[in-house]
Amino acid sequence: MTSDNSVQVSVLGLGAMGSALADALVKAGYEITCWNRSPGKADDLVARGAKAADTAGDAVRAGQLVIACLLDHASVHEVLDPLSDQLAGRTLVNVTTTSPAQSRELADWAARAGVTYLDGGIMAVPSMIGRPGASILCSGSADAFHQHKPLLDLWGTATYFGEDAGLASLYDLALLAGMYVMFAGFMHGAAMVAPAGVTAGEFASMATPWLTAMTGAFEEFATVIDGGDYTVEGQQSLQFADLGDLLAASSAQGISTEVVAMVQRLVQRQIDAGHGEEGFARIIESIKQPG
Amino acid sequence: MTSDNSVQVSVLGLGAMGSALADALVKAGYEITCWNRSPGKADDLVARGAKAADTAGDAVRAGQLVIACLLDHASVHEVLDPLSDQLAGRTLVNVTTTSPAQSRELADWAARAGVTYLDGGIMAVPSMIGRPGASILCSGSADAFHQHKPLLDLWGTATYFGEDAGLASLYDLALLAGMYVMFAGFMHGAAMVAPAGVTAGEFASMATPWLTAMTGAFEEFATVIDGGDYTVEGQQSLQFADLGDLLAASSAQGISTEVVAMVQRLVQRQIDAGHGEEGFARIIESIKQPG
Repeated sequence: MTSDNSVQVSVLGLGAMGSALADALVKAGYEITCWNRSPGKADDLVARGAKAADTAGDAVRAGQLVIACLLDHASVHEVLDPLSDQLAGRTLVNVTTTSPAQSRELADWAARAGVTYLDGGIMAVPSMIGRPGASILCSGSADAFHQHKPLLDLWGTATYFGEDAGLASLYDLALLAGMYVMFAGFMHGAAMVAPAGVTAGEFASMATPWLTAMTGAFEEFATVIDGGDYTVEGQQSLQFADLGDLLAASSAQGISTEVVAMVQRLVQRQIDAGHGEEGFARIIESIKQPG
Repeated sequence: MTSDNSVQVSVLGLGAMGSALADALVKAGYEITCWNRSPGKADDLVARGAKAADTAGDAVRAGQLVIACLLDHASVHEVLDPLSDQLAGRTLVNVTTTSPAQSRELADWAARAGVTYLDGGIMAVPSMIGRPGASILCSGSADAFHQHKPLLDLWGTATYFGEDAGLASLYDLALLAGMYVMFAGFMHGAAMVAPAGVTAGEFASMATPWLTAMTGAFEEFATVIDGGDYTVEGQQSLQFADLGDLLAASSAQGISTEVVAMVQRLVQRQIDAGHGEEGFARIIESIKQPG
């Protein structure tokens, strides 16, 4: 299925991400109309064939499909509340970063206004748009998703999670959580080796392939978690995963132990509850059931 | 440079990892002599051409190169202390998991006994030995490393860090820290989406490519860290990285916030110190300087 670039698309918000999204559409031959609160942001896009609208209302009226990539949830309401009549009958794809609750609230607002609503979470930095590794998480209107999937796929691999408009945002936040925590782990490792004269660049050259390889464990953990039995054979036990050596070596390097201590607490709560012989995947139970 | 498989190699310790290491050598045509404290572990290897020694002493005497893959630091001393005379003049590659301080102590012991010592950290699970993604971290004798690099490369990409025998172990622990923390981040994400009916397997299918792509940020962080200037352009600022939304969404899902709160504390300490406009890479300073 290729992208039906005869649909008229409007893009509201030309920050770094909105500009990257609009750029990908222009490249694919879409006729797009752009709007940004502060002027001048559309100049590059106009030079390459896009139209610029003076007002958000003009942009909305020009598009059958309206993409909103604004600062935050409040900005979406500020821009779109006065335009609900014009939006009626159109499709709104909102890729503004919002919480699950905010996405659901916008979906309700759109339903009341007669607007078809699809919520999107962009798992990429602007420079990754249209390149491998970018993905677009979607939830809300299934019809809108299936109709516009080819367009969404121009930005990144588009995946649909369900009618609950909050799901894409929830997934987005869950993946961001994984990312930030991984970053902290990288920083901890770099801080550990630094006193030995190892640069962060040298450490990154080892850590990048290593952590990439270790993401292979996620699927194995997931099989155990979804199976509901943490005692299945072939797992590293929680007792074996005791991080005392890591904490001691971190202290010996004179750095904070708090990053690794966080993991150790998750492990220890399961050991204390009598599950030391079970697999490492069981630490998810320490997270699912706050102490 | 191909592996010189005419060297006589002895392998002490045939647990899952020792067996995998020995297996890779047999496959590459080495004549190896194996020993394990409890008998029977060598049977498979013997069936494929390896020799089994009845005692550790017999094994040491059969090899010019002795590989130790034992339970822990104490096991290495227990097995090798009585054999220091026989080890003299040979090369010992110790891949037993030890702390940096323990590796340095073993290097000193080896120096006193006239043994050439190379410390190795294996960044792989046994099933990864000899396959892409496995790496062997080495420090200690440079001569031993360069002479035996082709053999070490049979197990995984071998890298040498320097004469300080503790460096390989320090790197090993730093990479393990990154791994365990990344695992905790994955578990947090899976726990966040679980109440919405998303399986861990579904989440893993998104998280694996996402976190793999995001390891690309390590090198960018490292450039900033090694440059020593956290104010360079093009970075996501600490203020932008405020994780309040993530904490709120985690709480709303009824799960523990401690995993993400760990990162938030690293961010907040830098913001509190007046660095909110600087780049995210600055969180390493929160780790380098414990509060």
